Amino acid sequence: MPPSPVRPPVRSATDVLERCRELVRPALVEAVGRLHPWTGEMAAYALGWADTAGNPDPGGSEGKGVRQALAVLGAEAVGADGSDGVPGAVAVELVHTFSLLHDDIMDADALRRQRPAVWKAYGTGPAVLAGDALFAQAVATLAEARGRYTAAAVRCLARTLGALVAGQAEDLRFEDRPWHGPDAVGPDRYRLMAEQKTGALLGGAIALGAVLGGAPDRTVNALERAGRHLGLAFQAVDDILGIWGDPEVTGKPVHADLRQGKKTYPVLTALAGEGRAARELAVLLDSGRRIDGETAERVARLVEEAGGRTATREEARRHLDTARRALRETPLTGAAADELDALFAYVLDRTW
Amino acid sequence: MPPSPVRPPVRSATDVLERCRELVRPALVEAVGRLHPWTGEMAAYALGWADTAGNPDPGGSEGKGVRQALAVLGAEAVGADGSDGVPGAVAVELVHTFSLLHDDIMDADALRRQRPAVWKAYGTGPAVLAGDALFAQAVATLAEARGRYTAAAVRCLARTLGALVAGQAEDLRFEDRPWHGPDAVGPDRYRLMAEQKTGALLGGAIALGAVLGGAPDRTVNALERAGRHLGLAFQAVDDILGIWGDPEVTGKPVHADLRQGKKTYPVLTALAGEGRAARELAVLLDSGRRIDGETAERVARLVEEAGGRTATREEARRHLDTARRALRETPLTGAAADELDALFAYVLDRTW
Repeated sequence: MPPSPVRPPVRSATDVLERCRELVRPALVEAVGRLHPWTGEMAAYALGWADTAGNPDPGGSEGKGVRQALAVLGAEAVGADGSDGVPGAVAVELVHTFSLLHDDIMDADALRRQRPAVWKAYGTGPAVLAGDALFAQAVATLAEARGRYTAAAVRCLARTLGALVAGQAEDLRFEDRPWHGPDAVGPDRYRLMAEQKTGALLGGAIALGAVLGGAPDRTVNALERAGRHLGLAFQAVDDILGIWGDPEVTGKPVHADLRQGKKTYPVLTALAGEGRAARELAVLLDSGRRIDGETAERVARLVEEAGGRTATREEARRHLDTARRALRETPLTGAAADELDALFAYVLDRTW
Repeated sequence: MPPSPVRPPVRSATDVLERCRELVRPALVEAVGRLHPWTGEMAAYALGWADTAGNPDPGGSEGKGVRQALAVLGAEAVGADGSDGVPGAVAVELVHTFSLLHDDIMDADALRRQRPAVWKAYGTGPAVLAGDALFAQAVATLAEARGRYTAAAVRCLARTLGALVAGQAEDLRFEDRPWHGPDAVGPDRYRLMAEQKTGALLGGAIALGAVLGGAPDRTVNALERAGRHLGLAFQAVDDILGIWGDPEVTGKPVHADLRQGKKTYPVLTALAGEGRAARELAVLLDSGRRIDGETAERVARLVEEAGGRTATREEARRHLDTARRALRETPLTGAAADELDALFAYVLDRTW
C-alpha cells in the first residue's frame, strides 16, 4: 500500500519499517541461508524473495515487516542499539513465516499474498517441513545470539510460541462450535483466541527487543502488553478485511472468511444484536447452507446492517488506544518511542 | 518386545528404560498438561497414553523411551543426578513425538505403532498443529528449566532440531533421485542423512543430559558423537525392519519401505553389487512399476541375495562398535556408563 500523502504519521511508519528492514535483512538472509537448500528454497518463496524456480519474483511480496520492526524498536526504546534487537527480529520473522505456512495448510487457504500458498506450490508434506525448518531456525538464531540476555530471550520466545500455537488451536476449534446457545463463542473467548493467535507474536516481538536490550521485567511486560493489544486491534482489522477487503489488496478471495464459515468478531457481534438483520443472519447461518457467491454477499450485508462492522472498528480502535496508552505510560527513551507509536497507528490504517 | 531370558544385557537395558521412564514421567505428564486441551489430547494419543476418545488405550504403546533414558543417563554419566537430565529428557521425548507426527504426514504413513497415525485419526491440519504444539513445548520446557546450564542446553536442542529437520528434508529429496548414475544416492550421502534424521536426536539426547549435568564441552561432544553413531546403527536396523520386519512387531505393513520406493541402505548397497541378483534388482526398480504384493516379495529376496541385508547388519554393527568405543574412551562416572553401554547394545537387539 503506498503511503497516503495526507497522513504524515503513515509515511513516517513506512520509513520506520524500511529502516528496520534494512537493518535486519543481512541476518535474516543468513538465517535462511543456513537451512537445508530445499527448505531454504521454500522459505525464500514464502518470504516473497523468489518464485518456485528460485528466481527473484516480481510478483512476490515480503509483507510489511511489522514484527521485525517491533523487535528493533523494542530494543531502541529501552535505550539499546537497534542491532541488539536483530536476533529477536529475525526470530519473529521466521516464526511469523512458519505460522503462515502451517496455518494455510490447516485453514486450506490456497492463496497467500496473491500467490499460491506454499502447500499449493510445493505440496503439503514439504510445506509442513519448511515450516518446521523455519521454527527450528528461529530458536537457533536466538539461542546462538551472543550476549547476557540470550536465556531470557529464549524464554520469551518459548512463551510466545506456546501462545501462538494455543491460539491457532482455539481458532480451529471454533469451527465446531455452534453459532448460538451456551456453546457459542462469546466475545471474551474470541478475544482470548485473538490475543494468543495474533497478539502473542506482536507482543513477543517488542518484548524480545526489550529483553535483548536489557530492559527490566516491568518494562518488558508493559511493552508486551502493548503489543498484545496492538495484536487484538490488528486481528479486528484482519476480520474486517476478511469480509469486506479488496481481493487486490488482501490477496485473498472476496468474502474469504464468510465462505470458510469462520467465527470472526464482526459476525459474532452481529449475531449478538437484536434487530431484523441479526435475526435474518442467524437464520441464514443456522441453515447450514454453503456460503458463496450471492449468499456471501448477502451475509456480508446483514453483518454490516446488524452493526458487526462498526463494532469491530470500535473494537480495533479501543485496543489501539489501550496499546498506545500502555506505550505512553512506560518509561522509554529516544525517537523509538514515537516511532513505535507511529507504527501502532499504521496498523489500523490498513483498512480505513 | 519381552526381554529375552538368554541375554542378560537385554534385561538390564529394559530395567534401565523402566527406571528412567519412572523418573521422567511426572515432568512429561506435566509438560503435556500445559498444552491447549485439544493439542494435549492428540499428544496423549500420539504418546500411547489414550485413545481418540481420551480414555486409557490398551492398544496404545508408549515406545521404548530410549531417548529420555539417554538424557537421564547422560547426566548421571557425568556425575550429576539423573533428575538434572529430566528437562532434557522431556524435551527430547516431545521432539521425538513431534517428528513422528509430522514425518507420518510427509511420508503418508497411515500406521504408527499398530494404530492409525495422528493425521489419520484427527486429520492432517490438526496433526500439523499438534506437532507444532509439542515442538513449542519442548523448547519451553528446556528454556524454563532452572539452573546454570539452561542456555547451553537450549543451544544444544536448537542444533539438534536443525539437524533433525535437515535430515528429514534430505530423506524426502532422495525420493526424486534416480537409482543409478551420477545423481544416485551414494552410501556417504545416505549416512549423512541418517546421521541427521536419526542420529541427531539420539546424540542430542545424551548431550543434553551431559550439558544439564554440567559436563565440559569435550565430554559433551564425545557423548554426542557416540549417540550419533548409535543413531546410524539404529537407522540401519530400522531399514532392515522396514523390509523384513514382522508387521506384528513393527506396527507397519510388510515390505513397507519397498512399497514406498524408499532409498534405504539395504537396497542401495544391493544395487551397488555386481552379481545376477543386483542386475535383476536394478532392472526391476528401473522399470518404474508399482512395487507391491509379489513384486515386493521378489525385491526383498533380490536385495537379500545381492547382499543388502548382510551389508546393513554389518553397517549397524560397525556403528554400534564405534559408539561403544566412544563411550569407553570418555571419562564417565558411576553405573550410568555401564547402563549406557547396555542400552546401546539393546538397540541392535531389536532385530536379530
